[in-house]
Order: sequence, then structure tokens, then C-alpha cells
Amino acid sequence: MEQIRTMAQLMAAAKQGEKKIVSVAVPEDDEVMEAVEAARKEGIISAILVGNGEKIKTVANKLGIDLSNYEVVDERGGNTAAALRAVEIVSSGNADIFMKGMLHSADYLRAVLNKEKGLRTGRVLSHAYIHEIEGYDRLFFVTDGVVNLYPDLKTKIDIVNNCADICHAFGLECPKVAILGAVEVVNVAMPPTLDAAALAQMSNRKQFKGCIVDGPLALDNAVSEESAQHKGIVSPVAGKADVLFVPNIETGNILAKSMVYFARNKTAALVLGAKAPVILTSRADSAETKMYSIASACLVAQHKA
Amino acid sequence: MEQIRTMAQLMAAAKQGEKKIVSVAVPEDDEVMEAVEAARKEGIISAILVGNGEKIKTVANKLGIDLSNYEVVDERGGNTAAALRAVEIVSSGNADIFMKGMLHSADYLRAVLNKEKGLRTGRVLSHAYIHEIEGYDRLFFVTDGVVNLYPDLKTKIDIVNNCADICHAFGLECPKVAILGAVEVVNVAMPPTLDAAALAQMSNRKQFKGCIVDGPLALDNAVSEESAQHKGIVSPVAGKADVLFVPNIETGNILAKSMVYFARNKTAALVLGAKAPVILTSRADSAETKMYSIASACLVAQHKA
Repeated sequence: MEQIRTMAQLMAAAKQGEKKIVSVAVPEDDEVMEAVEAARKEGIISAILVGNGEKIKTVANKLGIDLSNYEVVDERGGNTAAALRAVEIVSSGNADIFMKGMLHSADYLRAVLNKEKGLRTGRVLSHAYIHEIEGYDRLFFVTDGVVNLYPDLKTKIDIVNNCADICHAFGLECPKVAILGAVEVVNVAMPPTLDAAALAQMSNRKQFKGCIVDGPLALDNAVSEESAQHKGIVSPVAGKADVLFVPNIETGNILAKSMVYFARNKTAALVLGAKAPVILTSRADSAETKMYSIASACLVAQHKA
Repeated sequence: MEQIRTMAQLMAAAKQGEKKIVSVAVPEDDEVMEAVEAARKEGIISAILVGNGEKIKTVANKLGIDLSNYEVVDERGGNTAAALRAVEIVSSGNADIFMKGMLHSADYLRAVLNKEKGLRTGRVLSHAYIHEIEGYDRLFFVTDGVVNLYPDLKTKIDIVNNCADICHAFGLECPKVAILGAVEVVNVAMPPTLDAAALAQMSNRKQFKGCIVDGPLALDNAVSEESAQHKGIVSPVAGKADVLFVPNIETGNILAKSMVYFARNKTAALVLGAKAPVILTSRADSAETKMYSIASACLVAQHKA
């Protein structure tokens, strides 16, 4: 598979693959229904809508969406019950992707982590933003700016592995993972640089499969070969990073939003580490971002299949 | 004074003001000398060059720079001695701005903080990046992504006040300071949101002069009015922030570099909290950034005068 370097290539790949089935928890919301309908019309998904059937009908009528194109599961026991029923459709193999509707992220992720009906694996859940930025020849994967607050080293290992998996689904056989810090040197006064050193050395000792990890790297050394040369950094990752691994949620959230609000960009997002791809779009996401997120989930589901 | 909203306006204001005198510590380097000469030619500064006179002559000859336009202080006692002598020229009132040449940042800042000869005030030193970003109607001040690693609340207060000062020099009478976090709600599991709440409430109680502080805000709520409305945030700062205050060095460094490497931008930087403006450019900075940093220092010096 060719490496996917743009969101246009992502959409093409999602359309080329087999159509995937999305189970949507609590879809009774204009923006959620519009996103699902748009992806269905693009031909990349079909969907099972799990929520209050009456409300789903009202929203669909209002938006002119023909519900005969969907399977509706009427669940009136509230959001938690709907989320559990929706996730079970995925864990039982009757859908490929789990998608969030109008419920709190915490309630939604609790369904993912439910021991009986959820999508748990041995790994921690983590979040990745995927960005196409004008002027760069590849996508950037930013992880984790949403789910893990202040991951310890053990959690960071899972986050790296989760992100390597999604890169593989994007046709990147051996993604280059930059463990970001404020500087490119190991500094005992900066804990993120110590974790970075450990992760880099794990990579040297081949403790990661399917990715190359190096750090600490400052953002400029990670993405700009000129900047890396300027600093005299010898590294297979410096200047060529695919994954921008951040030390904590503030750094990741602000980096990802900086790309969205300051750069010419196209963005997708996904929760990783579950048995199936998990879509956690928020109301603030554009329709475009929701579409790319669904397409990313299709790619990951394809890759797992 | 009109609010300065672009780097072009910054240059115009620096040219309009009285010419400032820069004392450069260890200038014997091509890039440093080129930056000083370019600013001198723009008519915004004259400069005193403090370092190894022989080496300064060699660099000047190589670059075709006429040293008769400069005062050269020949100091061959090494970088630390040169830095101390250069900073004393500023603290004694014979120059307006202190600028870093070819020495380590730590050695340079130690001269700033020297008790006898330095530029200490009661406040902590802090760093601000100043960014012009395509599509925004104002400059953004990012603080602190360079000098303070993991500031406590007391230090954060100084950093806010330092940044308000530079905003005043840029004609912003009452800058809007967004204390950034990963979320816009106070979350006991996220320490930066607790400091943000304290700083915001200090602002409510009029404990800050010459600025309005609010937080926590996520980056999107801080810079986009649409995003702030979407979240239903009622705040005089949300969507209108001038200052993007970050919780730690990783967040600030990565945010600032994201603006430089991913957005269409123009950038300056300055160290604040000393008796005079302190320029800490690095080799990785473009010639343009060095010029804007010198012009920013001129503006701050003008404002202090």
C-alpha cells in the first residue's frame, strides 16, 4: 500500500476499501447525523444508529435524511445504556467502528472500556490527531493531546505503539516517532527529556516493532531537516518525523489546535488502543474534520481486518 | 500610541522612535554581526560591540562591515568577562538594550542577573515570543516557552506582568491574557487549570494592573470567538486573547515553534523582567526574526524611557 500523505489520498483509500459499518452511540443531534449521512453518501460507511428512536426520527426528518438507509436500534434507557448497546454491536463483530454522538466523552469512553461489552485490549487508550499542513510532504500524527493527561513512561510506550498502528494503516511501514521536548538535549531538570531518552534507547535496542523512535527533539528539529542540521543532530527521525509525540495533554492539545487555528491544514482524529477504531469527534470539529476522522477509522478497520 | 498589529507596523514604530544603543556581548560571529549591521542600516540602533577586538575585526572585514560605525570594547578575558562588561554598559545607562552574541544562553543570562553589574529587578526574568500570524488582526505574545521551565503560581504572576509590560510598549493598553490549558474548565486532575483559576480570580479582584487575565482557556477558545461561543464561554478574553500564557516550557516552546514552522508567520522574541530589554536570539532564528527582535527591544526601551 502506498503511503497516504494527504487527506485527499485518505478519502480515495477509504472509498477504495470495503464499506465499513459504524455503530453510533446517541446520534440524535444535527451535526452528528449530518456527519454520518455525508460519509454514507461518500460511500465509505453504512451505519447503525443506537439511541432514542423517536428523537432520531425527529432529527432525520428535520434534516431530510432518509432513515431507510440506516438500521436504527431504539434504546430509551438513557445515554449510558445506548452507549453500551452501541459498543456491544462492535465488540460482537456486527460493526467495525464505534462513533460518539451526543453524550459526554467520559461516558462514551467508559463504554469502550467496559469489561463485558467494550473494546478493551491490553493497551491503554490514546488519542491521535492527524494533520495535513500546507508545505509538508507528509501527514503529521500528534499524540496524545486528548485522552491521557500526564502519562508515565509505561503509558507512553503504549501511546507510541498505538500511534505506530494507525501509521501502518496509513501505509507508513516504519513511522518516525519524535519524542518532543522544549530542547533536543537530555536535561536532568526537564523530565520529558528523560522519558524521551528512555524511549529512544528502547528503540535502539529494538524494543519497538514497526517504528523508529528518537528524542528528545524540539519541534523544529523534528520537522525541519535544515533546523536539525543547524543543531548538528544525527538521528533517523530528526527533520523527518511522522509522529509528534508530546509529553502531556496541554502540549498536545495546544499543538494540535495551533495547527488547526494558525496553519493551512486539514485535520482528523481517532482514539486508538481499542479492538476497533473509536471516533471521538467534538461539536467544535468542522464537518470536514468529522469526514476525515470517519475515513481514518475506515482505514484502521481495513488494516485490522 | 496606536496598537501595533503587524511586524511592518513594529518596524515603522521603531524607525519613528529615537535611535537606541545596543550593547552586544561577544559579537564575533557572522550571523550576529549581520543582524546588528542590518538593524543599524535600518536606522533603529547604534551598537557597542564587546568582545575579542581582533576577532571582531576579522568578522567585520570578512562581511565588509565598516567598524568605524561602531564602538568596539576590546575584552579578551573570555565570554563571561565580555558579557559582564557588556551588561554593565547597559546597567550604567550607556546603552539601552542588551544583546546576546556567540556565548551560551546560560552565561548570557547570568550576566543579566549579576547582582552588581546586571539588570536585576524584583521580578523573575521571562521570555516572550511575538507572532504575526496570517489571518489574525493582532499580534500574539506567547510566554514563557524558553526561560522558565515549570513556573509555580508566584512565578506565573511575574510572567504575566512582564508580558503585560511589553504589550504596553506595543500600544496595547490593556492586553487580554489567556491562561491556556487543554480544556476551558477547572479540573482538579489538571494542575494548570487550578493556577489558571487563581490567576483569573486575581484579575477579577483587580490584583493585576494594565491587563485582563482569564483562564483556563483551550487555545481555540482563546483565539477564536466562534469557538468560544460554541462552548458558551462568557469572558472578556475568550476569542480575543493577545497573550497566550502557557503552563510550562514544553507547551510554550512547541506552540511557538508550531507557529513558526506550520503557519504563515513573522516572529520576534525578547527576554523581559530586567531593567532593560534583553535580546536572546539563537542561531536557528532567521535574519527577519533577529531584526524584529531588535525592533521590539527598541520599542520596549522607548517605553521604559
